[in-house]
Amino acid sequence: MHTVSEAENIVLSHTLALGWEEVPLGHSLGRILSEDLVADRDFPPFDRVTMDGIAIRYDQFAQGRRSFPVKGIQAAGVPQQQLLTPEACLEVMTGAILPEGTDTVIQYEQLRIENGEATVLAESVNFRQNIHLRGTDRKAKECIVTKGKKMSPAEIATAATIGKSVLRVARLPKTAIVSTGDELVRVEQTPLPHQIRSSNSFAIQALLLERYGITSQLFHYPDTREAIQAGLSEIFDSFELVVLSGAVSEGKYDFVPQILLSLGVEKHFHKVSQRPGKPFWFGTLGNKAVVFALPGNPVSAFMCACRYLLPFLNQSLTETPRDPEWAMLMEKVVFLPALTYFLPVRLKSGTDGVLQAYPLPGHGSGDLANLNDADGFLELPLAQDVFLQGGVFPFHRYRF
Amino acid sequence: MHTVSEAENIVLSHTLALGWEEVPLGHSLGRILSEDLVADRDFPPFDRVTMDGIAIRYDQFAQGRRSFPVKGIQAAGVPQQQLLTPEACLEVMTGAILPEGTDTVIQYEQLRIENGEATVLAESVNFRQNIHLRGTDRKAKECIVTKGKKMSPAEIATAATIGKSVLRVARLPKTAIVSTGDELVRVEQTPLPHQIRSSNSFAIQALLLERYGITSQLFHYPDTREAIQAGLSEIFDSFELVVLSGAVSEGKYDFVPQILLSLGVEKHFHKVSQRPGKPFWFGTLGNKAVVFALPGNPVSAFMCACRYLLPFLNQSLTETPRDPEWAMLMEKVVFLPALTYFLPVRLKSGTDGVLQAYPLPGHGSGDLANLNDADGFLELPLAQDVFLQGGVFPFHRYRF
Repeated sequence: MHTVSEAENIVLSHTLALGWEEVPLGHSLGRILSEDLVADRDFPPFDRVTMDGIAIRYDQFAQGRRSFPVKGIQAAGVPQQQLLTPEACLEVMTGAILPEGTDTVIQYEQLRIENGEATVLAESVNFRQNIHLRGTDRKAKECIVTKGKKMSPAEIATAATIGKSVLRVARLPKTAIVSTGDELVRVEQTPLPHQIRSSNSFAIQALLLERYGITSQLFHYPDTREAIQAGLSEIFDSFELVVLSGAVSEGKYDFVPQILLSLGVEKHFHKVSQRPGKPFWFGTLGNKAVVFALPGNPVSAFMCACRYLLPFLNQSLTETPRDPEWAMLMEKVVFLPALTYFLPVRLKSGTDGVLQAYPLPGHGSGDLANLNDADGFLELPLAQDVFLQGGVFPFHRYRF
Repeated sequence: MHTVSEAENIVLSHTLALGWEEVPLGHSLGRILSEDLVADRDFPPFDRVTMDGIAIRYDQFAQGRRSFPVKGIQAAGVPQQQLLTPEACLEVMTGAILPEGTDTVIQYEQLRIENGEATVLAESVNFRQNIHLRGTDRKAKECIVTKGKKMSPAEIATAATIGKSVLRVARLPKTAIVSTGDELVRVEQTPLPHQIRSSNSFAIQALLLERYGITSQLFHYPDTREAIQAGLSEIFDSFELVVLSGAVSEGKYDFVPQILLSLGVEKHFHKVSQRPGKPFWFGTLGNKAVVFALPGNPVSAFMCACRYLLPFLNQSLTETPRDPEWAMLMEKVVFLPALTYFLPVRLKSGTDGVLQAYPLPGHGSGDLANLNDADGFLELPLAQDVFLQGGVFPFHRYRF
C-alpha cells in the first residue's frame, strides 16, 4: 500500500501530453495559456492624459505664468495635436494623447476658464503631472502574462488590449467518466429499496468542468465482467482520460482491476493509506490513456478526484504549479488508524488573517451530504493520531 | 462624494428581483439554488454494508460461534435476502442491503472461507460493525442543501442522489455591457498611435460569466451624445442590468451621466472616495433596470466591478451572503489621499495558516498588466495613511 505522497508522485509522473489548440478570446475563460502574452507596443502606447483639464508647458508655469489662452481641445481618440505657442494651452480629456509641445496637465478642479482663458488656481503644479508616460507600465515585446497561466477576467482584458483575438491554450483531454454497480439507477428513476441513484459521475464531471472547462462523456455499465470489459475496450479507442468509480475493492463483483489489466492497462498502484479513498487504483494504457479507478463511495470518489485528478490535470495542462494552501484546525481531532485522514472542514477567514478550518459534526465521514456543508478538506498526516486545535495542515479547497 | 461603504449600501438597496427558472441538473453548475434540496428518503436508504465479507447474527458470535456455513451471497443492487438459519451466514458486498436476520458484518480480511464454511479469525467483533445504518446521515424530508447555495460539484452529486434532474435556480439578469470612447478600437484592429483596444467589456463579461454563469451582450458607441443616447434608449427596452464603462468623468465628452438622467435613470451617486474608481456612477431606471457606469480606466472598471457589481449580484440572485475574507499586509504601504485604497496584492498561504498579501511593485496603480500578477486587492481604509506590515485588511479575491 502506498502513502498519499507516493501515490501523488506516481500519478504526477504519468501526465498526458496534450499539446495545444487555438480558441477565440471569447471562449478562453478558464483555459490554460500555451503561449506567452507579449506587449504588442508600449503601455501606455503614448503619453496619456489621466485627468480632464488643460495641457501646458511646465516652464511657463515655473516662470510665473498663471493665465493661458485656450487654443483648442485634444479629445481622446483623435490624432495628436500641437501647441504652437508656448504661452497658451490646449484643453485635454482623460485618455487623450498628450499634445505635442506640452508636458504637464492641470485638472479642471484647479482652474477657472473664462472667455477662452484658463487661470490656474492651484498653488503648486508638478512637472509631468497627470500624465501616464508612454511605456512606463510595459515596454513593447515585454511578456505580460506567462504561458501556464489560467485565463481569468484580468488576463482576458490583457489579451484584448494587445490584440489577441485568438489564443493558444492547452488542449483538453478527451475524458470518459464511467460508473459501475447494479445498485445504481439513473437520476430520473425512482430507486427500489436496495438501489441508490448514480451521483459520482455527475460530481466528477462538474469538478472537471468547473476547474478546467473539461466536458466529459458519461458511461454506465452493469456489474458483469462482459459488460464492463466490452464497454471499457471501446472507451479506450476514443478517450485518453478515463475516470471510473466503483468495483475496485475486494468484493466478488469488483471486476474493474482485473478487466483493466486484461485490456493492457498497467497498474501503478492499488490502495493508498488514506481515509476515505483507500481502494483507489491507478494505471496507464501505454501513452494512450490514463485510468483513475476511484472507489464507489461518493465521498471517497470525490476526495480522490480533488486530491489526485486535479493535480494531474494541473500538470497535464502545463498549468503553473499551484502553491499549497494551509489552514488552522479549530477543534481537536483524534484519528487512530495508520492512514492519512482527509477531514471535511468548513472554512472561515479570521480577522487576524488566519484561515480557520472547522471540522463538521461527526467529521463528515462517508456522508455525501456533509460535503455540501464543507468547503474543502484538511490533510491530516498518517504519522500522527492526535491533532490539536491550532495545528496548521494542508487544505484542499473545493468550494469558491 | 460617498464613502465605499455608503456606496455599497446604496448599491445593495437596489437589487433586482429576478425570480427563478428551472434548469436541467447538467446545466446547474455555478447557479444559485432557489429551492431547498430535501432528502427524498433516509440516507442511507437501507442498512448498508460497508465492507466485503459475511453478514452474521451477532448473538451467535457472542455465544462463542466462530464457524458459519455460507448460505448465499447478498450482492449490491439486488433485493434484500434473508438468513433463515441463525447459525449460518451470507456473503455480502459493499453497497449491498444488509440481509434480513443479520446485524453484523465481518470483512474478508478477518475470515477464512473453505468448503462453504466461513471461519472468523478476528478476536473481537462489534455488534453492527461495518454497517452504515439507515437514516444515520439524513432522514427523509430533511433539508440537505439550503436555498441560496451556489451549485458546486458537491451539491450536484447530492441533487443527483435525491433524484433532482431539474432544479429551480435564480434567473440570471439580462445584461448589457456598454463601452464608449472614440479612442477604442476592436481587438482585431490595429490601433493608430492615439488609439487603444477595447478591453473593459471583455473583462466584465468574463467576470460575470465566471462568477455567476451570466452571459452578457456587448455594445460599443462612439463619443457622441446622439449615438450614446440612441443606443442606451434601445438597451433599456431589453436589458435589466446595464454596465457601462467610460465617459463618466468631468470631460467635455463625458456625456454618460447627462444622457442617463435624460433617459429617466435616477442617479443614486456619482463619485466614491476611493482609488481607483472615483468617478463611479450608479443609478436605476424605476424597477426596470440597474445601471453601473464604471470609469473607463481598465483597473478602475475592473475593481469597481469586483467591489460593487459582484456583491450586487450576490444579493440579486439571493445567494447566501459571503463572509468577507481577510489578509495580512506583508509590506508597509503609505497612501496619503483621503480615499479608500484598493491595493492589488499577490496572495500566499503561509504555513502558519495566515493569508499573506504582498503588494505589487509600484502598487500596481493604473496598470492593467499588474492585475495579471495580483490575485485580488486589499481594501485599505480612508481614515488611515500608513499601513504597517502585519496589519490585516479586507481582501477581495478575483483569482481562484
